[in-house]
Amino acid sequence: MIYVIGSGPGNKDFMTLEAIEAIKKCDTIVGYKTYINLIKDLIEDKELVENGMRQEKERCEMALKLSSEGKIVGLISGGDSGIYGMAGLVYELNSKLEKKEEIKIVCGVTSSISAASVLGAPIMHDFCQISLSDLMTDWKLIEKRISLAAEADFVIAIYNPRSKGRSEHLKRAFEIMGEYKSPSTPVGIVKNSGRDGQEMYIMEFKDMNFDICDMSTMVIVGNKESYIDDGKIITPRGYNI
Amino acid sequence: MIYVIGSGPGNKDFMTLEAIEAIKKCDTIVGYKTYINLIKDLIEDKELVENGMRQEKERCEMALKLSSEGKIVGLISGGDSGIYGMAGLVYELNSKLEKKEEIKIVCGVTSSISAASVLGAPIMHDFCQISLSDLMTDWKLIEKRISLAAEADFVIAIYNPRSKGRSEHLKRAFEIMGEYKSPSTPVGIVKNSGRDGQEMYIMEFKDMNFDICDMSTMVIVGNKESYIDDGKIITPRGYNI
Repeated sequence: MIYVIGSGPGNKDFMTLEAIEAIKKCDTIVGYKTYINLIKDLIEDKELVENGMRQEKERCEMALKLSSEGKIVGLISGGDSGIYGMAGLVYELNSKLEKKEEIKIVCGVTSSISAASVLGAPIMHDFCQISLSDLMTDWKLIEKRISLAAEADFVIAIYNPRSKGRSEHLKRAFEIMGEYKSPSTPVGIVKNSGRDGQEMYIMEFKDMNFDICDMSTMVIVGNKESYIDDGKIITPRGYNI
Repeated sequence: MIYVIGSGPGNKDFMTLEAIEAIKKCDTIVGYKTYINLIKDLIEDKELVENGMRQEKERCEMALKLSSEGKIVGLISGGDSGIYGMAGLVYELNSKLEKKEEIKIVCGVTSSISAASVLGAPIMHDFCQISLSDLMTDWKLIEKRISLAAEADFVIAIYNPRSKGRSEHLKRAFEIMGEYKSPSTPVGIVKNSGRDGQEMYIMEFKDMNFDICDMSTMVIVGNKESYIDDGKIITPRGYNI
């Protein structure tokens, strides 16, 4: 039995009761070091299997192996496990096994939702989430999605905006969005959302500061109705007020 | 002081610790009856101000008034308050006041995330959320967004898919998506996600069953890579397995 548990954006305050109860049921916790560290006090009495970044496949295989040995396994995934998380991969690997393991997804708060709550109410209406990581997705497809999302006037939440190896992708994304988003469109940036060292920046599209963004940053770009008021971004739902 | 609290999709199991702690701090709880009922045991000792559907403005004004009188107010919003919820409206109304109230958004699990966890791992990659309610949004804009989102091959989560007054909107949305989504694209439907009476259906795009959808239903349409396996929808993230 594997619980695939979204641990939320930061420490245990952002986890659901269901997620905390699921952890209590587990014998063994499998996860990426950074996320495990954030919820350390919940898992003190558990067997721990931690590993590093980009070892997602090994992590899922380990969870499946431990489950096949009769362990109740908690596979920890930052944010929500179903959004750029571990849920898909563990199902994919399980589907190839002769003897399948039981899997239960325990949902969590994803980073865009957490960042939005820090910025005010920037989402509020139709929106989309796009990851700029081209490790596993063709960059041309990412560009196409950015362009069509901007044309559709979605609020756009950008995951994995900028890493050392991809320092120019975010700038390119803004060039593409700039064909549809006006220079005064509000942009919100949240670094380390829900964690120690949380930082928040609000600016207009034309003043976008790319240099403050890294892999622990969420960037949210408003729609045509969004505005900045009193240090917050507000996207109206459409109420007549 | 107003805490705008996302109460998650169902009962308190899907609330975050932060949301539960925020409720404890409140003197008065303001909210829509249905959501208040779902978390009754958390608010037994609080002053309650409940009202009905479509009275969102009155609810926010009441929260602001009570806060101006010195009360600590918990404004309850189903799911996450920042996604089609109360967060934007209370900020909008507050910005018009001479003496502004302090507002803190307490995030929650939105319905698409909860429904996805029931369906397997249908989201997993770039996705968008679109509400089919045209009460406050021009239907032409909604159609445009559906078309561009399908062209971009986003996973698409449809909020408010069908009400008595809008029985044909969902069918029209599928006609539009059908220009880009193949007939075998997986579609997941979750009714009453996270609540008593939860129902889950998985089918191919060409077999879509519109009649089972209502306002308490979430519809999730996969992307080109999504597939159905062992009664779950899986959208691969792109790992080489």
